[in-house]
Amino acid sequence: MKISGMGEDALIERLLRLVPVDSRPGHGPGDDCAVVDEGGDLLRLLKTDAMVGGIHFQTEEIPERVGRKAIARVLSDFAAMGGWGNRFLVTLAIPPETDLAWAEGLYRGMGACLRMVGALLVGGETTRLAAGAAVVISVAAEGRVRREELVLRSGGQVGDLLLVTGTLGGSIHGRHLDFTPRLAEAAWLVKHFKPTAMMDLSDGLASDLPRLAAASGCGFHIDVPALPCAEGSESSHALHDGEDYELLFSIDPSICEALFREWRMRFPELNLSRIGKLTRNDEWQDIGKGWDHFGE
Amino acid sequence: MKISGMGEDALIERLLRLVPVDSRPGHGPGDDCAVVDEGGDLLRLLKTDAMVGGIHFQTEEIPERVGRKAIARVLSDFAAMGGWGNRFLVTLAIPPETDLAWAEGLYRGMGACLRMVGALLVGGETTRLAAGAAVVISVAAEGRVRREELVLRSGGQVGDLLLVTGTLGGSIHGRHLDFTPRLAEAAWLVKHFKPTAMMDLSDGLASDLPRLAAASGCGFHIDVPALPCAEGSESSHALHDGEDYELLFSIDPSICEALFREWRMRFPELNLSRIGKLTRNDEWQDIGKGWDHFGE
Repeated sequence: MKISGMGEDALIERLLRLVPVDSRPGHGPGDDCAVVDEGGDLLRLLKTDAMVGGIHFQTEEIPERVGRKAIARVLSDFAAMGGWGNRFLVTLAIPPETDLAWAEGLYRGMGACLRMVGALLVGGETTRLAAGAAVVISVAAEGRVRREELVLRSGGQVGDLLLVTGTLGGSIHGRHLDFTPRLAEAAWLVKHFKPTAMMDLSDGLASDLPRLAAASGCGFHIDVPALPCAEGSESSHALHDGEDYELLFSIDPSICEALFREWRMRFPELNLSRIGKLTRNDEWQDIGKGWDHFGE
Repeated sequence: MKISGMGEDALIERLLRLVPVDSRPGHGPGDDCAVVDEGGDLLRLLKTDAMVGGIHFQTEEIPERVGRKAIARVLSDFAAMGGWGNRFLVTLAIPPETDLAWAEGLYRGMGACLRMVGALLVGGETTRLAAGAAVVISVAAEGRVRREELVLRSGGQVGDLLLVTGTLGGSIHGRHLDFTPRLAEAAWLVKHFKPTAMMDLSDGLASDLPRLAAASGCGFHIDVPALPCAEGSESSHALHDGEDYELLFSIDPSICEALFREWRMRFPELNLSRIGKLTRNDEWQDIGKGWDHFGE
């Protein structure tokens, strides 16, 4: 059996049966980051994320933008847990014909993004691929989150409202490189209107929302025609394109009105949209599928 | 300028100029792992290490052995700092024609190796490469070391003796897959005969020893004909083959005799060899070069 055609989630589920995992919610695989709790007020977060040339970026792309994206994707995952990133390790696997100038542009872009958030590169390596192979950039990082501000995917409750930041769809037209990780918005949310569950949208709402709902033991219902679509996008793009890097989260309905009122004052430039709610777990809405690495 | 023909160390040096790094000895890039010191008796260690199909393993190799190697290489790096590994994240980049059975074998091998040392997989991901591309396995891990047992590459002193465990050379005949990370030996050494500097031999003595010497601000002299060669290997193999995964370390000459006496009782099955000494940094011996990912 080839892995092509298997969904990524199904593949991972098969593989994780074969290794010892930390199965406490949030502590092992399955959330945006893995939580390490060794007591104290600050928990640690661990994350790895890889990009492949020709899939996550085009090879003719400006390398500074590619490097920025490699770091920003990971920052987006830390934001989705209510945390931030500190230390990064970068593995660069490249074919021998790569221009030094390209690699330098990549690191310049990574460096600018690390500096913006006060994070450091502490390790990593370079390794050679065969001639003609696509570049692989694998980023590992460690971050932090305050214990009382940690949000997992698994805390959603039946009846919680579902919200997203920004607009969705059409990221391929440039936003997949230039997105802003929602670190400030997430930090504000977890302090003032703590979501019951949260994740970042990387594979598209249609792939990611079912993951959040399943982790929370819920189903979901969303109002598809009312999705906040990016300019030039329709709801099908908002559902399926992926790489939005916006926050998807659930909140107790009782805080919804106050949240919207204060959000408009705090983040007047950024949309916040109520898109649906979590339901009983026998009420799953069919919204198709988002991006799947191993789908047909 | 293409990166082919640049040495890996020269490439990394160019790239690290472009990013914010933690430049305290051991805390940033340049040692076997990066140290994180947040007070307390236990320091944390961070490490990433990647393997590429066709370079670090043959595609027809039994996947269990490949998976074991991916984890064992990282354990070897933790050992070289005097520490051990706790939490692992695995990124698997694979072409769509990969057999599920192969991927499962890989994770089975990783799982067996993780269980052997009581470590857990806490995260990672799978991502798709183009058809025909070589598999890339990137492992990120976090470990621990007791503060008083931490050994860096940079602590060697002029006149310290250089020692290696085991035998060197010929790893390609199978040992590069079946090596034993020297966790027990390193733990014993740092407790009883703490080295002044230590690293694991992954690129071959001729590449790795100059790195240890340079980090310590020393030169070196070794007795090449007396190197402990693996069966069927000559000193040129011991110098240049790489993937020995043995410990290279320096000690104060005053403890050498007692170390050898107690080593023979504690590890009677494993060679320990005195191969030379650290010298003033204007006395570099020419021993050629070991394996370099980007060398011609």
